[in-house]
Amino acid sequence: MGAPARRGDPQRRMRPGGRSARVNEAVLAAVLDEIVESGYSKLSFERVAGRAGVHKATLYRRWANKEELVAEALLARSASAVPVPDTGSLREDLRRLAHAIVAHISSPSGQALLRTLVSDAGRDPEIAMAGRTFWSERFARAGAIVERGVARGELPPDTDAAFFIERLISPLFLRLLVTAEPIDTAYADRIVDALCPGSGAGPD
Amino acid sequence: MGAPARRGDPQRRMRPGGRSARVNEAVLAAVLDEIVESGYSKLSFERVAGRAGVHKATLYRRWANKEELVAEALLARSASAVPVPDTGSLREDLRRLAHAIVAHISSPSGQALLRTLVSDAGRDPEIAMAGRTFWSERFARAGAIVERGVARGELPPDTDAAFFIERLISPLFLRLLVTAEPIDTAYADRIVDALCPGSGAGPD
Repeated sequence: MGAPARRGDPQRRMRPGGRSARVNEAVLAAVLDEIVESGYSKLSFERVAGRAGVHKATLYRRWANKEELVAEALLARSASAVPVPDTGSLREDLRRLAHAIVAHISSPSGQALLRTLVSDAGRDPEIAMAGRTFWSERFARAGAIVERGVARGELPPDTDAAFFIERLISPLFLRLLVTAEPIDTAYADRIVDALCPGSGAGPD
Repeated sequence: MGAPARRGDPQRRMRPGGRSARVNEAVLAAVLDEIVESGYSKLSFERVAGRAGVHKATLYRRWANKEELVAEALLARSASAVPVPDTGSLREDLRRLAHAIVAHISSPSGQALLRTLVSDAGRDPEIAMAGRTFWSERFARAGAIVERGVARGELPPDTDAAFFIERLISPLFLRLLVTAEPIDTAYADRIVDALCPGSGAGPD
């Protein structure tokens, strides 16, 4: 509270309620809409400001560059679309997370965003870097599920949280992006069962 | 031998040696080069014939349409770049397969092809369908590794071969296409170890 707000300080930007928070929300939504419509290469502070109905200077005060803006927009979207659950049960947390991912990547907007990111990342190192920042933060947040499972004795102490989450979500992305096989919650549950052997098919 | 060769008959097309096989090889390589350079939407029998230095009529005699031609070109490439091993050991077969995939998707040509397929598949149902034909055939071939492991008692009898192969290769594709984390043989070995628990870190 006592420290002065700095540019790039999430506390300042994410303060709930008030005009500042509403501007933030509008800007971050505009970023993702622009990416899906026109791709990362055409994204600019000017276009985002125009779409969000705010002054360009407002964006420059809050975000240092496009990469930072995009990484934050992706984190905000995924935090609302795919929240990280904490039910007290590893299996239930994994199921809820996987089901939310299935719903998100099955939705037209989620799918369009993801496909654009993947396509653009192959061509543009800057968006690849923004994506990498985003994913490593997302994996750290989702990894909390695994760490809590380890703390409760549901997983061995040497479990690598990021590797565990990779094995949870990668089959879903393989089907979405590569093999075009169907993705549903039953498939998500099979992945969870394969990762939590011995705990049966039902909830804990 | 007695049956007449039909259009679309792989026996006739894949006959080793001779002019027919050389034409086949040139055409299939030209298909993939065209896709990487210009994308699936611009692919035509005319362009492929020009690049391969054969008559367009030759292509029409051998392939019914673009989808069939592309699926066969992908299968031929993957059969040579990522052969399905049969060493007598599940773990060793999985390691060799995973290492070959790492080498292939780390190579500029393999990566360019894969990225183009993924990008195009998001936009074009026809290439998505060709990709689906290709992947389901690839998974069936790689699944033989799992089936032999089941037959040798290295895996439970109810093991789903395709699902097993999905869990083997999906973390590699996640890193390549989505998270941009590094991909190497050590990572491939970790995936194999996670899928073959209890058999130790060394070869069988």
